[in-house]
Amino acid sequence: MKYRRSGRLVDMTEYFLAHPHQSIPLTYFSEKYGAAKSSISEDIGIMKEVFEEKQLGIVETSAGATGGVMFIPMINEAYAADLINELCTKLEDPARILPGGYLYMMDVIGDPMLMQKLGRVFASHYRGAKVDAVMTMATKGIPLAYAVAAQLHVPVSIVRHEQRITEGSIVSINYVSGSTKRIQTMSLARRSLKPNSNVLIIDDFMKAGGTIRGMMDLVMEFQSTVAGVGVLTEAIHEDEKLVDDYLSLTKLSKVDAKTRTIQVEKGNFFQQS
Amino acid sequence: MKYRRSGRLVDMTEYFLAHPHQSIPLTYFSEKYGAAKSSISEDIGIMKEVFEEKQLGIVETSAGATGGVMFIPMINEAYAADLINELCTKLEDPARILPGGYLYMMDVIGDPMLMQKLGRVFASHYRGAKVDAVMTMATKGIPLAYAVAAQLHVPVSIVRHEQRITEGSIVSINYVSGSTKRIQTMSLARRSLKPNSNVLIIDDFMKAGGTIRGMMDLVMEFQSTVAGVGVLTEAIHEDEKLVDDYLSLTKLSKVDAKTRTIQVEKGNFFQQS
Repeated sequence: MKYRRSGRLVDMTEYFLAHPHQSIPLTYFSEKYGAAKSSISEDIGIMKEVFEEKQLGIVETSAGATGGVMFIPMINEAYAADLINELCTKLEDPARILPGGYLYMMDVIGDPMLMQKLGRVFASHYRGAKVDAVMTMATKGIPLAYAVAAQLHVPVSIVRHEQRITEGSIVSINYVSGSTKRIQTMSLARRSLKPNSNVLIIDDFMKAGGTIRGMMDLVMEFQSTVAGVGVLTEAIHEDEKLVDDYLSLTKLSKVDAKTRTIQVEKGNFFQQS
Repeated sequence: MKYRRSGRLVDMTEYFLAHPHQSIPLTYFSEKYGAAKSSISEDIGIMKEVFEEKQLGIVETSAGATGGVMFIPMINEAYAADLINELCTKLEDPARILPGGYLYMMDVIGDPMLMQKLGRVFASHYRGAKVDAVMTMATKGIPLAYAVAAQLHVPVSIVRHEQRITEGSIVSINYVSGSTKRIQTMSLARRSLKPNSNVLIIDDFMKAGGTIRGMMDLVMEFQSTVAGVGVLTEAIHEDEKLVDDYLSLTKLSKVDAKTRTIQVEKGNFFQQS
């Protein structure tokens, strides 16, 4: 396929976006387009400039025989802040209040494009953390977990409450739900996470942190380490949380079913810097 | 932000890929880049040529005051066929055989990039079907469903076996599992699917089709229509299937736990044309 620079840039941009966190040798492109390596280097320079100016990502080139170029997705900070502000406003809609003080969030979680954007916020933050896998809890953590994992180019391990028989041997642990104090069980297929992995835990909601704590313990059962913990929404909780080190995108600071008011603010993700 | 053509092409390619099935007015780009509409039209012409030559998608332009340009994702047919062939070979690994004739598939379902590619196969096929929502069954159908929905730019409705209290009023139906003949329940939050939607049903696995049949009935309960049914893998089933009109990407034609052999072939998706 012979392209001039303009055509190559369209094709290469698509290729980089579809292959994040993967080292691609320059020869791949020079052979694909029948172009000199020097021209490909110039193309990459143009992409790098646009991606970095717009904070869409970093383009890293490494020299030498094994040299290549790698696209590392990021997210524009101002864009991320706007996105989260909008999300907070959206979540403050009183129509979301459900019996029992729960909040309806399936419209947010059911929006694949929003999940991709939010996933990119975490993927950008943990881009240097050498994450090997993303772990989440079925069901509602899955969409955000996949969005993060796709951008980091790592697999997803889905932990479940049930003990399913269809996945071979499983590792189960008991944990105490921090809010209800009930003992529950969570399971993960033995084959679903390689030992010695560095695991990023992603979930949709955290109250006391019992489920997250359980997942952290489960990671240990796989002789693995926790790279970090990211949640879409954290709720206020009177007692001490069971997890210290986590990042939340939004924070549910008040739900009053009687007066039908909700207060949602930016999570601690935005307080770090 | 002022860019020359080369910079604009990188930025616009990223923008189109992130906004599939959405009409974008030309003025959006001409204002963004401070460039003449004629230059933007030429840029779009270059993108269109590359996308269409590589079968990555169609770029549709509509003229007039409300005119705009829309990127409709597709997948290269030869690439899709190769992808599915590889997947069949991967699935034929005897190590996947689990007690009870089940097959371990979480490594496949746990691969976000593979899910995105497979999602694109369905999104490409149903691109003209005016799909309003994608419906799937928790847990294992979710990754593929999101991949399809993201490319079609529609929301996802997640049906569940449990009756969760945290999502407000739910619609539940009983259905008969086609393989085990047991009566089961599936539920969907009332708010989670708008009435009069055209719904694409996506799932990971279909044996007799009882679960899919149940989801089709559930769609009716929401005064909605079924746009199509797509599954990652179908299994052979002695009796007549409960669903006639479906597309499968792969077909498990033989699982013999005794001799530890699996036979997987391309699904009916590839027999249509």
